[in-house]
Amino acid sequence: MFIVKIGGGKNINWDFVCEDISSLNKKEKIVLVHGASTKRDEFAQLLNRPTKVVISPSGVSSVYTDKEALEVFLMVYAGLTNKQIVANLQNYGINAIGLSGIDGALWRAKAKKEIYVKEGDKIKLLKNNLTGRVEEINTDLINLLLNKDYLPVICPPAISYENEIVNTDNDWATAVMAGSLKVKEIVVLFEAPGLLRNVSDEKTLIERIDKNKLDEYLVYCSGRMKKKLLGAKKAFELGVKRIYWGDGRIKNPIINVLSGKGTIID
Amino acid sequence: MFIVKIGGGKNINWDFVCEDISSLNKKEKIVLVHGASTKRDEFAQLLNRPTKVVISPSGVSSVYTDKEALEVFLMVYAGLTNKQIVANLQNYGINAIGLSGIDGALWRAKAKKEIYVKEGDKIKLLKNNLTGRVEEINTDLINLLLNKDYLPVICPPAISYENEIVNTDNDWATAVMAGSLKVKEIVVLFEAPGLLRNVSDEKTLIERIDKNKLDEYLVYCSGRMKKKLLGAKKAFELGVKRIYWGDGRIKNPIINVLSGKGTIID
Repeated sequence: MFIVKIGGGKNINWDFVCEDISSLNKKEKIVLVHGASTKRDEFAQLLNRPTKVVISPSGVSSVYTDKEALEVFLMVYAGLTNKQIVANLQNYGINAIGLSGIDGALWRAKAKKEIYVKEGDKIKLLKNNLTGRVEEINTDLINLLLNKDYLPVICPPAISYENEIVNTDNDWATAVMAGSLKVKEIVVLFEAPGLLRNVSDEKTLIERIDKNKLDEYLVYCSGRMKKKLLGAKKAFELGVKRIYWGDGRIKNPIINVLSGKGTIID
Repeated sequence: MFIVKIGGGKNINWDFVCEDISSLNKKEKIVLVHGASTKRDEFAQLLNRPTKVVISPSGVSSVYTDKEALEVFLMVYAGLTNKQIVANLQNYGINAIGLSGIDGALWRAKAKKEIYVKEGDKIKLLKNNLTGRVEEINTDLINLLLNKDYLPVICPPAISYENEIVNTDNDWATAVMAGSLKVKEIVVLFEAPGLLRNVSDEKTLIERIDKNKLDEYLVYCSGRMKKKLLGAKKAFELGVKRIYWGDGRIKNPIINVLSGKGTIID
């Protein structure tokens, strides 16, 4: 079994992804996790509820989620994007089932109602934040579905211990899920050939990273890549053996990255 | 096992519904089907994609679903509403799982790309209509979940034989699902005490309807009620023995209707 986690960038080619999953899934069980950030921002804008990005004191960016933002999140992740992916996979002969972290309490998270954020030089406390960090996974549900040849297509939000819906970091949740499922390999696809030394030059691909030296690569990570790196660290802590970072825009995105075209962390 | 189908009206009291489900579910398996029409219309308006209602030549109203309308539908039904209901049920101790008709090809529909509609005295042909009529149910998936004490929370859209996402009539789909699951009773809740002789007078409740004389009651059905009546006819055709129509706004909505407070069709 392995996990494929695909970012929410607009240039991800979902036909290529589905094609690869349909051939790889014949040999091995796959769990798919996806984002939808571009579409979320688009609909947030259309609904006049623009996405608010905040920066933690340690410099990691994340989305501030109030009640209105959570509605947009639910709509675009668990509704629009999740179901479009499921239908696309069905079209490639894969019996996909879409689930959010709420369904069957699949992703149980510790709510984090107050967060500190950096605004210029100041540190501020934000309240009424509807996010949380995933701690427990309903692996029984995933295994129940996998054993009947369903392919779970999973996305945030998660559900808190108090049964509130909470936005959650997808890379972290994927790491915790990999640990709970005892998955050894994760494929992470986004809109770049892998981690780049120079973000604007695709020829500067970093082909291999020693999992014990991940921190040294934080300097090459901007924005969302920082979360991917933190997610990777967590995954190795929980027993994952290898993570592949690769390009979700090209033909055979998963087969390519598994054969070494991308960044391998191990 | 019985099916509870709840309309998408804004005055449905979901806390009361969840409370009843949590006590009834201890004795009997329940499958929940829900709508979200009020919220859909609200977000369709906010997104400047107002819901277009069309009238069939036989006088039944339905929603014309183009690509843009289908996006709104996916967002509000399968995303926002479905997940809020699931979280609410989780809060009442019920391990609910939300599924659209797309997931696991739960509701397979025959696409109906062209529909005839009545505009004044004229009959027009509308093309590119993304709707379909549910014909086949993945009962294995529902039983798989029920046997592990999950409560399925199901909503449209459905998936066509060509693996396209299609909007579908919820009452019809519920009837077909009841038939496939060999369910004998369906509880249908909406924003009225049952079927009324005079829609503006709640004292004119029709308490009992002979299932063989349903057509005679079509005169009391306006708008969406017509679809409920057609759905009921289909359900009886497929082996359902009794249908309860009742009020989703009041305390103990399901327990009340099962004890006779509403319209019983049998």
